[in-house]
Amino acid sequence: MVATEVRLVRRPDGKPVPSDFSIVDTDVPVAGPGQVLVRNHVLSVDPYMRGRMSTAKSYAEPYELGVVMYQGGAVGEVVVSNHPEFAAGDFVQHWAGWRTHSVLDASEATSVDGDAAPLSAYLGVLGMPGLTAYSGLFEVGGFAQGDTVFVSGAAGAVGSVAGQLAKLRGAKRVIGSAGSAEKVRHLVEDLGFDAAFNYKDAPVLDQLAEAAPDGIDLYFDNVGGDHLEAAIETMNLHGRIVLCGAISQYNSAEPDGLRNYRMITGKRLTLRGVLVLDHFGLRPRFLDEVGPLVRSGRLKYTETFVDGIRNAPQAFIDMLDGANTGKMIVRL
Amino acid sequence: MVATEVRLVRRPDGKPVPSDFSIVDTDVPVAGPGQVLVRNHVLSVDPYMRGRMSTAKSYAEPYELGVVMYQGGAVGEVVVSNHPEFAAGDFVQHWAGWRTHSVLDASEATSVDGDAAPLSAYLGVLGMPGLTAYSGLFEVGGFAQGDTVFVSGAAGAVGSVAGQLAKLRGAKRVIGSAGSAEKVRHLVEDLGFDAAFNYKDAPVLDQLAEAAPDGIDLYFDNVGGDHLEAAIETMNLHGRIVLCGAISQYNSAEPDGLRNYRMITGKRLTLRGVLVLDHFGLRPRFLDEVGPLVRSGRLKYTETFVDGIRNAPQAFIDMLDGANTGKMIVRL
Repeated sequence: MVATEVRLVRRPDGKPVPSDFSIVDTDVPVAGPGQVLVRNHVLSVDPYMRGRMSTAKSYAEPYELGVVMYQGGAVGEVVVSNHPEFAAGDFVQHWAGWRTHSVLDASEATSVDGDAAPLSAYLGVLGMPGLTAYSGLFEVGGFAQGDTVFVSGAAGAVGSVAGQLAKLRGAKRVIGSAGSAEKVRHLVEDLGFDAAFNYKDAPVLDQLAEAAPDGIDLYFDNVGGDHLEAAIETMNLHGRIVLCGAISQYNSAEPDGLRNYRMITGKRLTLRGVLVLDHFGLRPRFLDEVGPLVRSGRLKYTETFVDGIRNAPQAFIDMLDGANTGKMIVRL
Repeated sequence: MVATEVRLVRRPDGKPVPSDFSIVDTDVPVAGPGQVLVRNHVLSVDPYMRGRMSTAKSYAEPYELGVVMYQGGAVGEVVVSNHPEFAAGDFVQHWAGWRTHSVLDASEATSVDGDAAPLSAYLGVLGMPGLTAYSGLFEVGGFAQGDTVFVSGAAGAVGSVAGQLAKLRGAKRVIGSAGSAEKVRHLVEDLGFDAAFNYKDAPVLDQLAEAAPDGIDLYFDNVGGDHLEAAIETMNLHGRIVLCGAISQYNSAEPDGLRNYRMITGKRLTLRGVLVLDHFGLRPRFLDEVGPLVRSGRLKYTETFVDGIRNAPQAFIDMLDGANTGKMIVRL
């Protein structure tokens, strides 16, 4: 039997290309004492990974070159367990990245309930993106009933959960932006957004102003750039902005400057960054609240599947280009 | 007897010039029923006034052209009172702007204690700038004992109070920036800052990094531009930034963009705007706490005086250029 892994071999210059990665077959690793061997079923490709491919200073160290794309979410089945907490056949979530097989210390694996939801849900709506949306809205953004909420990248893994949770918790109006007519339709018709627009159709500021005639109170930012400027321009006094992602900027060597930051003073806005690793303690509460919403179908999620470990780099590249609706999943 | 007032007659293009204003002699106005006539002793010229001279959207309407520079702080003596709350000889603070005489409704005047502090103090350390510093640090910035605090424009009316209050409340280290060697000396030797630098000597980022080897936890921004970028770069995780002013940008038609805003997410920073008008309710607590500190000399303040209503425009222009140390006061 053979294991396969994806390694980062070159730092992308702008948009990543397939040759920034190499696909390597190796022996299946062996679980040592206290460890488990996991055969992965689904892998995650996420926007934040682009940041870690550069050497620019960030919250996390840059990925090392020449080794597997580590610290990426995955869910798989335990095939060998040398630890009493796990048995063969158990499903676990972990962070060992883009590979078919992972050997983990028991402390690195978290059990997931494969009956409660499909395994892939633990990479998306019930995983890190879902928890990011939940903690961003409720812990960082101070969401209040009656808020008008704008979510950019709203068809993505984080945005789609943020918009729906805001609506379910009593937002007055939820507005989403996305990058295709199909995504815009999906937001309004499937996910219950009150309004949505395609940012490629016209300037974000014009479309946002039209969708939010009474201004916005809370902005959940996954995009940065002109979206963030438009949101600042459109915010009501004392509005709040959750800075989660800036996907418009990840492939840029020279990011755009934020030109209207002085309005933060005039409008007494609060801008605050969210990073899910600060909020892992919320996971039990999050699963208690969001798990039932997912099972009952009140909170919907979409996944875009790409099959095979060899296609993980292309899945990542396509996700950065917005080819996915909802969570991009690599299925093994 | 003649009254004199300063009118805004042209919107400044970049730096204001004296001919943007006109000095006009008028009759002394007459107090109607329920009103008071006040002869002003001191007037305030403040950075925020520059913003209101432009038509750019802001938190306040632009000043009208052709009329007195209204809504500026002043302290004077009641000479005629048609209201039982005030008697001739009382001192009051008000917002009627750049003129020698003001007629006010009683509700527009606030008594000040001319024995507790010089009248000019009510335009600075005990007035709006002091309250701005107080509410910015403690209400908006979430100041905590042990914080390392950086204050830009630290020799100005707001900054000098912010830095000293942080120190008096138990900051671990307070760092200030200013625009001359004399101001830097003043911050360290007179006001008790732990470190200070002249932003004209070398890039702000380099000087700040040297002054704050362990990073900063709270930044009180009066300057914007490169100061704000340097602070974001230097902030510790979960740091807080109070956006109070952006004097580096006020005379610019094309303000600089904030290039490193993505670090707000990575470091999970909070940026929040402060405007004193949200915090007038704090005034009693502020005067109770800060009044005694001023009287005892534990909180020091400096004033730069310019004499005569006819020199108010030049005082304003010089203040924007940084010619003042502490509060710029026009003395009549």
